[in-house]
Amino acid sequence: MVLLEKTIKKIGGLDYTLMEKAQERLNNLTKPQGSLGRLEELAKLIVGITRNENPVLKNKIIFTMSGDHGVTEESISAYPKEVTPQMVYNFLRGGAGINVLARHVGARVVVVDMGVACDLKPHKDLVIKKVNYGTKNMVKGPAMSKDEAIKSIEGGIEVFEEEFFAKGARLPDGQGSASSQEKGIDIVGTGDMGIGNTTPSSTITSVITGKSAENVTGRGTGIDDATLSNKIGVIKKAIRVNKPDAKDAIDVLSKVGGFEIGGLAGIILAAASRRVPVVIDGFISGAAALIAYELVPEVKNYMIAAHCSVEKGHRAILDYIGLSPLLDLNLRLGEGTGSALGMSIVEASIKILTQMATFQSAAVSKKIGKQSRVPA
Amino acid sequence: MVLLEKTIKKIGGLDYTLMEKAQERLNNLTKPQGSLGRLEELAKLIVGITRNENPVLKNKIIFTMSGDHGVTEESISAYPKEVTPQMVYNFLRGGAGINVLARHVGARVVVVDMGVACDLKPHKDLVIKKVNYGTKNMVKGPAMSKDEAIKSIEGGIEVFEEEFFAKGARLPDGQGSASSQEKGIDIVGTGDMGIGNTTPSSTITSVITGKSAENVTGRGTGIDDATLSNKIGVIKKAIRVNKPDAKDAIDVLSKVGGFEIGGLAGIILAAASRRVPVVIDGFISGAAALIAYELVPEVKNYMIAAHCSVEKGHRAILDYIGLSPLLDLNLRLGEGTGSALGMSIVEASIKILTQMATFQSAAVSKKIGKQSRVPA
Repeated sequence: MVLLEKTIKKIGGLDYTLMEKAQERLNNLTKPQGSLGRLEELAKLIVGITRNENPVLKNKIIFTMSGDHGVTEESISAYPKEVTPQMVYNFLRGGAGINVLARHVGARVVVVDMGVACDLKPHKDLVIKKVNYGTKNMVKGPAMSKDEAIKSIEGGIEVFEEEFFAKGARLPDGQGSASSQEKGIDIVGTGDMGIGNTTPSSTITSVITGKSAENVTGRGTGIDDATLSNKIGVIKKAIRVNKPDAKDAIDVLSKVGGFEIGGLAGIILAAASRRVPVVIDGFISGAAALIAYELVPEVKNYMIAAHCSVEKGHRAILDYIGLSPLLDLNLRLGEGTGSALGMSIVEASIKILTQMATFQSAAVSKKIGKQSRVPA
Repeated sequence: MVLLEKTIKKIGGLDYTLMEKAQERLNNLTKPQGSLGRLEELAKLIVGITRNENPVLKNKIIFTMSGDHGVTEESISAYPKEVTPQMVYNFLRGGAGINVLARHVGARVVVVDMGVACDLKPHKDLVIKKVNYGTKNMVKGPAMSKDEAIKSIEGGIEVFEEEFFAKGARLPDGQGSASSQEKGIDIVGTGDMGIGNTTPSSTITSVITGKSAENVTGRGTGIDDATLSNKIGVIKKAIRVNKPDAKDAIDVLSKVGGFEIGGLAGIILAAASRRVPVVIDGFISGAAALIAYELVPEVKNYMIAAHCSVEKGHRAILDYIGLSPLLDLNLRLGEGTGSALGMSIVEASIKILTQMATFQSAAVSKKIGKQSRVPA
């Protein structure tokens, strides 16, 4: 609990003074004011988060965290749970969707075992923070103990910190402020893998947002009507059996959560504590964002919603926290795939801020005064 | 007219057989079927357009075409018309929004003078296809002659062809089919610059879609209420004075269009004729897309709408042609900025298709048969 408390204490507000300066600069670039819409808002936000007038988003990392779920016993997924470790190996070989998209945007994928149900073969790119061999079946009792819930969040914080201070980390090519020299992470994305994990995510969403299971439960990897109906019943039963306290995020995580969800909440909190912008992927990352947000509402300032997932509970999460997604491409894969694409748009926004010419430098005429334009 | 007719004749349909093969391959990649949503649709479309099972979108070009507009005499813009050549020089120095975003996605910007109202200083990266020194004021008569309208479209076709067969063009790094060896363009984006050009774009949109001027006219670079009301009046007057024939796209372009709009219609037609996917930017590019679509409806198959602009007439265009935009980031700059970001998403889709592991190659278990999952 010490690490979690220390991390939470470090989370501060945005730097509104620098954000105002960034806005002035954006207004002076050779384009009509505001004409780059969300790119301008993003650039301003990143300045406020990083407290850097010239942020460089070079070192991009996506944490793809894996865990298994005891609730798969209840037949709520279209895939067998062996797929969780199989996909971890696929990530490590570079053949999964997240690998392709991370390469496309110049991000590095850090694969983390938060609680896969078997021992994984060691690999230089695999970080082991296993809390347990999968959660317990939440229709029969809590998915994990409170200690395990805290351990999963702190595991996420540790993974972040290890990368943030990594000796071998690639450093920005210059331009960065002095303090960025010690950083291994300029921007972070969240990602998940865990067969069955839309079920705890829907349960968390239902408990925290107060929406019914029907309204926040989707088809996950692609279940049929009968399985969907069973899944909704399982979610309701898990809530009935465990009575999670909606006001206590650790209680919710322990009773109806997952180890990778706790780990991702840790990543989000750690990023905020280090003033690193965090790009939230889809529904499972959204459930982790809910946990982090309930623990520390200020964490919202550091979050950028990459996209709106096909999973219908995701919209409920975005609305509850108050986030507006960058993309809407009907994605529902997870792994951090949406984060990767979103990260590239955030990077584009910073290049606009730092690389565009001003009206003065380019000798471009500014807007005409109103009076002179409309004939009397 | 010969070049235009020849180009139109070359425009064929998509290769549905290869698209089916691409779909099978997408279904076999290590992800739930369809879980990458629009990325999967895009990948399939690009295969159908290029007739290549392994397309490579390496050589990315954005054509940013400029022209001036006589209608600026009517005080319809927030910026003086000197900004058109000033921005062309900004493009050539690499300081504009499009330069920054094109660099971000690895695209090259080709700057074209289709009809700027002054002689521009020669520059190695500036292509001169000047039809005339700006259009005439369309509230007093046609913006250009029919010959000029055709010349503007054919100028666009010529610019495309010169790049497509460019001797010095960068070639794909291998992987490409034999025929791609002669190509200078794998994917193209449209972009515009021309003070006042939302006015002809709204006029074209009103004429072709049949919507009222009020419903398709926005604030362009940022005009106030009085100027907006004046602009709507100007558009209505231009239609009244010229009576463009909605069924004759050349007539519409000549009476209420612009040289850069004609040039971009030429780019779109030429791209389709060469089976090159074309990413359409915002409202002005959309007006050009309308002209191209009215000339050859099949051109729609080759178009990808990058984003939905803040300019309200853009939605009318997208609905009329039947295009669904990839991004919605409140952009309204033009220049090809939306195309650049959209192009990167299209490229990502092709990497998904060609670089992801299959269930077999990664030894990942496939979906469980329905029967076995739901307990009886």
